[in-house]
Amino acid sequence: MSQHCENNDQVLTNGHGGTKDNGNLCVLFSVKENVGALAEVLRIFKEYHVNLAHIESRSSKRFSDDYEFLIEIDTRSESANIDKALNDLKGISTYMQVISREPRGKESVPWFPVKIKEIDNFANHVLSYGAELDSDHPGFTDEVYRKRRKYFADLAFNHKHGQPLPRVEYTEEEINTWRTVYNQLTSLYPTHACREHNHIFRLMIENCGYGPDQIPQLEDVSNFLKDCTGFTLRPVAGLLTSRDFLAGLAFRVFHATQYIRHPSVPLYTPEPDVCHELLGHAPLFADPGFAQFSQEIGLSSLGAPDDYIEKLATCYWYTVEYGLCKQDGQIKAYGAGLLSSFGELQYCLTDKPEVKPFDPYVTALQKYPITEYQPIYFLAESFGKAQQKLKEFAYSIPRPFTVRYNPYTQSIEILDRKNQLEGLVKTIRSEMDILTDAIRKIQ
Amino acid sequence: MSQHCENNDQVLTNGHGGTKDNGNLCVLFSVKENVGALAEVLRIFKEYHVNLAHIESRSSKRFSDDYEFLIEIDTRSESANIDKALNDLKGISTYMQVISREPRGKESVPWFPVKIKEIDNFANHVLSYGAELDSDHPGFTDEVYRKRRKYFADLAFNHKHGQPLPRVEYTEEEINTWRTVYNQLTSLYPTHACREHNHIFRLMIENCGYGPDQIPQLEDVSNFLKDCTGFTLRPVAGLLTSRDFLAGLAFRVFHATQYIRHPSVPLYTPEPDVCHELLGHAPLFADPGFAQFSQEIGLSSLGAPDDYIEKLATCYWYTVEYGLCKQDGQIKAYGAGLLSSFGELQYCLTDKPEVKPFDPYVTALQKYPITEYQPIYFLAESFGKAQQKLKEFAYSIPRPFTVRYNPYTQSIEILDRKNQLEGLVKTIRSEMDILTDAIRKIQ
Amino acid sequence: MSQHCENNDQVLTNGHGGTKDNGNLCVLFSVKENVGALAEVLRIFKEYHVNLAHIESRSSKRFSDDYEFLIEIDTRSESANIDKALNDLKGISTYMQVISREPRGKESVPWFPVKIKEIDNFANHVLSYGAELDSDHPGFTDEVYRKRRKYFADLAFNHKHGQPLPRVEYTEEEINTWRTVYNQLTSLYPTHACREHNHIFRLMIENCGYGPDQIPQLEDVSNFLKDCTGFTLRPVAGLLTSRDFLAGLAFRVFHATQYIRHPSVPLYTPEPDVCHELLGHAPLFADPGFAQFSQEIGLSSLGAPDDYIEKLATCYWYTVEYGLCKQDGQIKAYGAGLLSSFGELQYCLTDKPEVKPFDPYVTALQKYPITEYQPIYFLAESFGKAQQKLKEFAYSIPRPFTVRYNPYTQSIEILDRKNQLEGLVKTIRSEMDILTDAIRKIQ
Amino acid sequence: MSQHCENNDQVLTNGHGGTKDNGNLCVLFSVKENVGALAEVLRIFKEYHVNLAHIESRSSKRFSDDYEFLIEIDTRSESANIDKALNDLKGISTYMQVISREPRGKESVPWFPVKIKEIDNFANHVLSYGAELDSDHPGFTDEVYRKRRKYFADLAFNHKHGQPLPRVEYTEEEINTWRTVYNQLTSLYPTHACREHNHIFRLMIENCGYGPDQIPQLEDVSNFLKDCTGFTLRPVAGLLTSRDFLAGLAFRVFHATQYIRHPSVPLYTPEPDVCHELLGHAPLFADPGFAQFSQEIGLSSLGAPDDYIEKLATCYWYTVEYGLCKQDGQIKAYGAGLLSSFGELQYCLTDKPEVKPFDPYVTALQKYPITEYQPIYFLAESFGKAQQKLKEFAYSIPRPFTVRYNPYTQSIEILDRKNQLEGLVKTIRSEMDILTDAIRKIQ
Repeated sequence: MSQHCENNDQVLTNGHGGTKDNGNLCVLFSVKENVGALAEVLRIFKEYHVNLAHIESRSSKRFSDDYEFLIEIDTRSESANIDKALNDLKGISTYMQVISREPRGKESVPWFPVKIKEIDNFANHVLSYGAELDSDHPGFTDEVYRKRRKYFADLAFNHKHGQPLPRVEYTEEEINTWRTVYNQLTSLYPTHACREHNHIFRLMIENCGYGPDQIPQLEDVSNFLKDCTGFTLRPVAGLLTSRDFLAGLAFRVFHATQYIRHPSVPLYTPEPDVCHELLGHAPLFADPGFAQFSQEIGLSSLGAPDDYIEKLATCYWYTVEYGLCKQDGQIKAYGAGLLSSFGELQYCLTDKPEVKPFDPYVTALQKYPITEYQPIYFLAESFGKAQQKLKEFAYSIPRPFTVRYNPYTQSIEILDRKNQLEGLVKTIRSEMDILTDAIRKIQ
Repeated sequence: MSQHCENNDQVLTNGHGGTKDNGNLCVLFSVKENVGALAEVLRIFKEYHVNLAHIESRSSKRFSDDYEFLIEIDTRSESANIDKALNDLKGISTYMQVISREPRGKESVPWFPVKIKEIDNFANHVLSYGAELDSDHPGFTDEVYRKRRKYFADLAFNHKHGQPLPRVEYTEEEINTWRTVYNQLTSLYPTHACREHNHIFRLMIENCGYGPDQIPQLEDVSNFLKDCTGFTLRPVAGLLTSRDFLAGLAFRVFHATQYIRHPSVPLYTPEPDVCHELLGHAPLFADPGFAQFSQEIGLSSLGAPDDYIEKLATCYWYTVEYGLCKQDGQIKAYGAGLLSSFGELQYCLTDKPEVKPFDPYVTALQKYPITEYQPIYFLAESFGKAQQKLKEFAYSIPRPFTVRYNPYTQSIEILDRKNQLEGLVKTIRSEMDILTDAIRKIQ
Repeated sequence: MSQHCENNDQVLTNGHGGTKDNGNLCVLFSVKENVGALAEVLRIFKEYHVNLAHIESRSSKRFSDDYEFLIEIDTRSESANIDKALNDLKGISTYMQVISREPRGKESVPWFPVKIKEIDNFANHVLSYGAELDSDHPGFTDEVYRKRRKYFADLAFNHKHGQPLPRVEYTEEEINTWRTVYNQLTSLYPTHACREHNHIFRLMIENCGYGPDQIPQLEDVSNFLKDCTGFTLRPVAGLLTSRDFLAGLAFRVFHATQYIRHPSVPLYTPEPDVCHELLGHAPLFADPGFAQFSQEIGLSSLGAPDDYIEKLATCYWYTVEYGLCKQDGQIKAYGAGLLSSFGELQYCLTDKPEVKPFDPYVTALQKYPITEYQPIYFLAESFGKAQQKLKEFAYSIPRPFTVRYNPYTQSIEILDRKNQLEGLVKTIRSEMDILTDAIRKIQ
Repeated sequence: MSQHCENNDQVLTNGHGGTKDNGNLCVLFSVKENVGALAEVLRIFKEYHVNLAHIESRSSKRFSDDYEFLIEIDTRSESANIDKALNDLKGISTYMQVISREPRGKESVPWFPVKIKEIDNFANHVLSYGAELDSDHPGFTDEVYRKRRKYFADLAFNHKHGQPLPRVEYTEEEINTWRTVYNQLTSLYPTHACREHNHIFRLMIENCGYGPDQIPQLEDVSNFLKDCTGFTLRPVAGLLTSRDFLAGLAFRVFHATQYIRHPSVPLYTPEPDVCHELLGHAPLFADPGFAQFSQEIGLSSLGAPDDYIEKLATCYWYTVEYGLCKQDGQIKAYGAGLLSSFGELQYCLTDKPEVKPFDPYVTALQKYPITEYQPIYFLAESFGKAQQKLKEFAYSIPRPFTVRYNPYTQSIEILDRKNQLEGLVKTIRSEMDILTDAIRKIQ
C-alpha cells in the first residue's frame, strides 16, 4: 500500500458493508479493587445514557490490586452525555486515559487500536473504496474490471482478524499481467535491489509460490512472513488514513491490496496493487531489521498529534516506499515503490534525481509528488542506522506516555506509571539472563 | 493437567485418529548461499531414500548470507538410510542440529517442537487415551460416561493449532457436578488461595463466564488468558509424556482436559478434569509473573536429558500443581492440585504436612505420591524468587545451546553462535530505549 | 579486622590525637540556580549561629540547572540552633537530605561518609584505642609491647586519606612471630583454603613480599589490591563501630591493624592483628567477585537503621570472617577468621561444628561467640550466589533511597529522583555498547 | 592543551630530565597455573638477553585458573633478541598481546598505557620541550620569560602519577596577564558560551579560586574535577604526540600547561597556556556528559592504527577545541580554543565561518589551520548525540579487541575472550539491580 491519504483523520461515510461505525472512543481506566467498582462504573454510564460497545476488565499493571477497564463507547446516540460521564468516571478512577477519534479534553489522545483485533475498525474509515476509480484510471470504462475491483474490495471489507485471508482464483488475463511485471522486475533485481530483497526473494520462490506463472496468495505470503518476523498481511478495501495505516504497522500488520492493475498498461498503475505489495513490499518484511524498523514507525504514530502523523507518513514514504540504501559502496533500492516499478527502479539509480542522507528531522518535512518519479530520494547508511535515527526522532514526538508492543498479547502497553517500569526492567533482566547463558554456550 | 507420565518419552502405539506418526526427526542446518544448495540437499536425501515430511528454508541468523533449512524426516521407511544422509548433509553444512525422538549421534538432542504448530505432533504420542479408564475409576462401568469421555478425547485428538477450540454443550448432570465443585471451592478461596488467584478469579467471572451455573468454554477462557499473558489452552486427548507436556509450556500453551469427573463422587477425581483445569490452573496463567515462571520451566525442558526432564517435572509438580507461597506473613495455596481439591486445600494449610522451602536442587529430587494428599509441600517466598531459583537451576541443565522464545514468530530460537548474541543484545538495547523514554514520561 | 563493636554508634570520647570531633552532621541540599542562592543559605546559618565545618557546591544531578550543596555542620557550639536552621533551609531547597550521627527529624538518616575522604572522620569515633589491653591479654603486663601498640595506634590515628600508608620496620621478634604463624597456616592452605585464596596467595608471594621471613608492608599489599580490584587497606587505631567499619567497605576500603600479636602465644590472638589481616583477609580482596560481595555489604549498610547494621555485621561475620564455601564437591574455608587460625581452620572442616546454608534472612539473626571456635558455620554455594542472596536481603532494608558507588569520584550517589534514573540507564547503555563491540571482537 | 602534534608517533630525543627511555614495549600474556610457569618465562628472557623493566603477575580474567603477566621490556640493549624471546614466549602462552612503540609482528598493536601510572612514560616522548620557543614567539628574546618557561617545563617533566600537582607562586605580572584575559572572556561567556560552561564556571569561582585576581592552582582545579567526574589535570612539559595525548583522556587525565602567555600580547598566545587550560578546558571536564565524551575519544585511540589516530585527533580538534553546539535554538561555543580566545569567540558566532553538522566520518577528514581563526566549525546537536556518533565511528576503527576502562583499578581492560563477556554482563546486571531498586525508591 503506498498512497495512504494526506488527510490524516478525515472519515468518509461510505455505504459499503453495512457495519455502522460506532465512532471509536476508548477509555482505559483503573479503579480500586472492591466489590462495587464495576457496578458503580456502569451506573455512571447509564445515568448519562451512554452505551458501551465493549467492556473488559483486567488486572492493573499500574497499581497492584487495582482493576483496569477498557471500554469502547458507542458515540452515535444523541441523548448520551459522554463528557459528563467521563468527568464522573474520572472522579472514581485512579487512572484514566481517553483514546478518541474526536478530541475529548486533555486526558484524550487521538484514537489508536490497543489490541490487534481493533484493527477491524479501520474498515469503517476507508477513504475511497477500492472500486471507485478516477476518470483517468486505465480501467475507468472497463465494467468487467470495475466489477472485479468491487469483488476484491468486498472481500477485504468483510475480513476480520483471526480469519484466514481470502484465497483468490486469478484469471488467465490477471496472471498474464503478473507475468509481464514479474519478468521485467526480476531482471533488474540482481543489480538494483538491496541485498536483503534478493536474499529473501529466493526463499519466497521456494516457500510461497513466487514465480512468473501464478500470483501468490496473500495467505501463503502472510504465513511465510509470520514465520520469519511475525509480520502479517491483511487485505484492505481502499485507502486508509495515514494514521490508521501506520497504526497497523505497530502490530506488524501490513494492509495489502489483493487486486491487480488493469491489463491495458501492465507496467503502470496509479495505485498500489498486488504486484506492488508482493514484489515491492513483502520480501523485506521477512527481514528482522526491516520488520522492526517498520514497526517502530507504527509505534511512534500511536496517539501522536496530526502534524507528527504527517511527518511520520513522509518518513514512511521516503523509506519503506522510496528508500535507497548503501551496500558495499553501492547505492541500492529497498523502497517498495521502486522495487515494483520497472521504470523508476532504473531511474532512481541514475544521476537524475537528487539523493540526500536520510535524517528524519529533514526528511519528515520534504514534500513529494505521488503521480510521477520522485525528484529526491533519501539514502540510509543501513537499516540499523536508519532505525536508530528514526527512534531518536520518535522520542521528540509530544505524547504523554511511551508505548510498548506486547507480542504475547498482541496489544499495546501504554507506559506512564512507575510500576510499569519495574515490569520493563524485569523483562530486560530476563533477557540478560538468557544472554548470560548464551555467552556460555556459544562455540 | 496434572498427572503427566513418569516415563518421559515412551510412545504408545494407539489406534485413534488414524494419523500415522512419522516419528519426529527434525534437522536444522545451514548452507552457504549459492544457486545449487537446495538441489544438492535434496539429492542427498534422494540418494539414501529418505523422505522429507516437511521442508522449509529461511534466512540464517547464524551466518549472514547463509540459508537455513528446517526439515522433518519421515522415519517410517525401512529402506531409508537416515544416518548416512545426515552424515553427508553435515559435510556440506555450515551448521547442523538434529532434534530427534530417537538418539542420533552427538549432534542430536531429544526432540522438541521449534514452532508452535509442531505441538500438533503431540497427539500421536498420547499415553493412555482419554477414554481408557482404570478398573477403580468411578466411571469404569458407566457406559454413557465412557462414551462421553471418548467424545471429548476425539475432539481433542482432531484439534489442530490455529483452529478455534471446540465449544461443548455440557449436560445438566455435568453442570450439576461443576456447581457442587465450584461452590465448595469458592467458599475456601478467600482464606486459602493466594492473592493472585483471588484477584483474577473475579475478572474471570466478569469476562469468561465463571459462575456456578455453567461450565466455562475452553475457548473463552483461552481468549481471556491470551489477552492477559499470551497463554492459551489446548484440549488434550489423554496423558502426555512429561517431555511433551512441559514443551507446551515453553510456547505458553497449556494442555487442558475438557471432560468433567464422574458425577457419582463430585469432590473426587483420579485424574485432571475440567474443574481442575479451569478452577485450579487457569486463573494463575493470567498473572504475568506466574505465566513467565511456567514458561521458564517449559523452556528449560527443551532438549534436556531424560533425568532433567524428570527433575523439571517434579519441580512442576511441587509448584504449579502443589505449590504453597507466603503472602503477608501467611501461607497460601497457589498449586492447581490444591485449588481444585476441597479436601486437600484445607489439609495443606494445617500442620499435618511438612513444609520445606522451595529450592529446585532439593525439590527436584523429592518423590511424591499421586493418589493421596501430599505429605510434603514446598513453599515459595514469592513467584519472582521461585522463578529466579528455577532459572539458576535451569542453567545447570547440560544442553549445548540456550533457547529463547520468539513471541512474534511463536518459535524457539536455538542460540549457539556468536552472531545470535548480537541480535539478542540489539533486542535488549531496544528495550533499554523504551525504558529511557518511559522514565522521562512517568508521572 | 574482625571484632568490630556490637554497639553500633556509641562514640567514646578519647584523648588521642587532639582533633576535636565536630560530630558528623551533613546536609545535602539543592537550590534553584540564581545569583543570591549561596548568600541566602549562608545567611540562614549565620542567623542561627551555626558554624559550617565544610561547604561545597556542585551541579545537581536531580534537577538540571540547580546547584547542590554538601555542608558539614559543626555541632559543638551550644548557641547554635541547628534544627531551626535546617527548617529554614528546607523552605528554600528543592531537595534536602540530612545525614547525621544524631537523629534529626524525618529527613534524616544515620550518618555515613559520602566521599572517601570523609572516612578520615572514623578515627574520632574509635572504640577502645589500640593500646588499651584487657587484663587477660597476653601482653597486658608487657610494657614494651604496650608501647609498641601505642606506636601503631598513633600511626593509624594520624593517617589521612591520600597519604601513603606508614611503612613499619618490624623487629626480629615480631618477624619470628609472623614466621611461626605463616609456616603453620601455609601448610594447611592447599587442603583447607578455597581455590581463590590459594590462587591469589602465590601472586602475593611474587608481587608484594609474602613469605616467612618478612612481614609485608600494608602499603605494598594495598597497592597490589588496588591494581586487582581497587580495594585498599587503611590502618586503624582501634575498634570501629560496625557502622563505620562496614561503611569503609562501601568504598572498597578495608581497615586493617598493623601491629602483631604478643610473641608469648604466637598461635593465639584475642583481637585482629597483622597476621589476621594479611594472611586471612587480604588475598580474597584481590578476587573481583569477593571484592564486589564485600562492597555490597558496605553499600547496604549506608544509612541503614541500627537493627539492620547489626544484621549486616552478623552476615559479615559469617561470611568474610567465618565463611565456608563449596568447591568441586568439597567444603573449603574462605573466612579470614578461619584462614588466620591454625586451630580453627582444622576444626571448621571436621564434623564437630554445625554447617547451615548461607541465607541472609536466617544468618543475620544467628548469635555468635567471639572468644571461642564457632559452633555454627554458614556455607555459601558460591560467592556469586552468596552475593545475589545478600543483594536481595539488602533490598529489604528500609531506606528512602538507593545508593550507588561512583568509582570515578570515589563517592556515594544517593538515588531518589527521576533524573538520576536517566543517568543510570545511560551508564547501562554505555556498557551495552561495549558489550556489543566486545561480542564482535571475541575470538 | 590544543596543539598536540600531527606526527603521531615521532619521538624526539631530548636531553631534559635525564630519565633514559626504555622504549615502551609491553607484553600481556597468560600461562597455565603451575609451579614452574614464572621460572620458565624468566628463563626465556634470560636466554635471549632481554631485560625486563617491569614484571607483574595477576589472575587471568580470560581463562580461569591461569595467571596473566604484564611485562615491560627494556629495548635499549643491543644484544637482546626480543623477537625470538617473544616467539618462544608465545609457544608457552595461552594468550599473548604485544603493545609496542615499534611494530612487532601481527600480535602487536601500537603502544598505549594500560595502567594510569604508565602515563609517566609520556614525559620521555615530549615533542618540543616547553622552553624551546620559535623565533616568532612573543617571548623569543625575553630571557626572563624563557627561564620561567624552563622552570615550568621542569616541574612537569619531573612530576609522577600520585604526587600532588606542583603549586606555583605566580608573579604580579603573570597575574595581570591572567586578569586581562579573565575579564575579557567572562564578559562574553553569558552570551557566547554553552550552558554547561556557564553553569560550572560559577561553581569554580566558589570552589577552586577562579576570579580575576589570582591564577587558580592546577591542584585545586584538578581536585574539583576529580570530585565532579573523576577527571584530573596533569602538568605537561611540552607537546605530546596525538597518540599519547589522546591516551591520557582514556584515563580521564588531561595534560595541561601551567605557564602563562607572554605579557606583551595578553590576548594572544601561539600555544596553549594556563588561561587556555583553565578558562577554556577545565569547566567542561566537570560535566559528566562531556567527561564521558572526552574519555570515549581517548579509549577509541588506544592501539588504533596511525591514520585513525589522526582522524580522532581531528575530531578532538573540532569538538573539544573548536566545537559549537545548539542550545535552545541558538548556537553556542563549547570548544576550549574558542572559550579562551576573546577574538575567535566573537568571530565563531558570526556568519563568516562555515558551520557544518558534526559527523565524525566527515569531520575526521577535514583539514584545519592552527595559526589562524578556523574557517569551518562543526555543530553538535547535543553532547549526547555527538558522543553517540563518535562511538559509532569508533566501532569502525580496526582493532583486534575492545577496551573498557576499569575505574576501580584505573586500568584498561582489553576484551577479546569469551570469559570477559561474562564479567561484563555481570557488571551490567549489577547496575540493573541498582536500577530496579532505584525505581522503587524514586519519589
